[in-house]
Amino acid sequence: MKLFVVLSCLLAGCLAQRPHPCSSPPLLSGALSVSSQNEKLWVTARYLYDALGQRIRLDEFGSHDNKTFSLDVLLLYREATMYEIFHHNKTCKKMPLKADFQPLGIPKTASLLGQSVLGSSSGPGQGLLVNTWIGDLPDKQGKFMTTVTEFGCIPITTLYHTDQFGWMMTNFFNNVIGISDPSQLNPPDFCPETEDSTEEPADFLSLFLTMH
Amino acid sequence: MKLFVVLSCLLAGCLAQRPHPCSSPPLLSGALSVSSQNEKLWVTARYLYDALGQRIRLDEFGSHDNKTFSLDVLLLYREATMYEIFHHNKTCKKMPLKADFQPLGIPKTASLLGQSVLGSSSGPGQGLLVNTWIGDLPDKQGKFMTTVTEFGCIPITTLYHTDQFGWMMTNFFNNVIGISDPSQLNPPDFCPETEDSTEEPADFLSLFLTMH
Repeated sequence: MKLFVVLSCLLAGCLAQRPHPCSSPPLLSGALSVSSQNEKLWVTARYLYDALGQRIRLDEFGSHDNKTFSLDVLLLYREATMYEIFHHNKTCKKMPLKADFQPLGIPKTASLLGQSVLGSSSGPGQGLLVNTWIGDLPDKQGKFMTTVTEFGCIPITTLYHTDQFGWMMTNFFNNVIGISDPSQLNPPDFCPETEDSTEEPADFLSLFLTMH
Repeated sequence: MKLFVVLSCLLAGCLAQRPHPCSSPPLLSGALSVSSQNEKLWVTARYLYDALGQRIRLDEFGSHDNKTFSLDVLLLYREATMYEIFHHNKTCKKMPLKADFQPLGIPKTASLLGQSVLGSSSGPGQGLLVNTWIGDLPDKQGKFMTTVTEFGCIPITTLYHTDQFGWMMTNFFNNVIGISDPSQLNPPDFCPETEDSTEEPADFLSLFLTMH
């Protein structure tokens, strides 16, 4: 009887917990789209995300100021290096990467806006329980709103404001926990050992907007 | 053995089916938010939806041109009538409703943009299988893009363009199949039998933008 009471209390305690800020799984792959309020930028990308090694691979296709672009980049935050990879002629540019790695998930300082069900809770496979959080971007650059799944802390949507593009929306989809081909997170053989230039790439910002 | 082959073929046939345009459940209740690209309009609302009786109840709170408003309306399409209901002083306005009922779901003429998983398919409760469709709005007013769940055809998001507001996005959430209090779809006792005015309400458009 005593055990039953203890178990009941434990269970009630667990079920009564409010959603907490969470970290997304350290290894993720999937797809994302980015669109801007002023319609100057849209991007769709396949991504690989490795929070353990602080590495991100983005294979992007998009449009910036009505010009389409495609861009395959490997971001190695620990080495402060990024590679732009051109498969058609097997060339590669090595560039410096001046940014901190921002892990996916909800920072501890964020506030819960609410919990909701996407779709319906009336039938199996019809709904998804999600939590929406708001908070401040690093360095007081503005606010963000991020929605993640209650189970697994998988990213769904991030919304934030930039001066250049207005409101930016990133939608994640087809996410899978793990990385099926980890070699994609190493620079290809044809990439140089030395940096080609110390300049930032022209559409550098657009890379980071995809995964703030 | 023969039965096994027949069953296998049937199963393979079912699984191999591409997504088809679908009708949402005829009785739904839940919540929605509407936001416009030009930031002139945002609305959150609780809704009740009855496609059998062609009735919609919307309890809205929002902002239009930086002025906040709240609005409780009952739309009876079969009777071409709408009621604006004021609970604080138990009054009610009856007005004509000049619009066709648009059932939720995907029209037969829409084209599949793609199937995707919101969240992740890697764990239970982490993902939701959805289909995204594009098509033409009635009367060639423009294009729409609508996402519904694969199982149940529950609305998730609708995006469409209007001249007044630019791109409009409607997000549905906390949907439940059925209506727990059907009396909410009848006009309250204190509503008049005769129409108060033949004028359209000022923010008439905003009602319809919420459920195209």
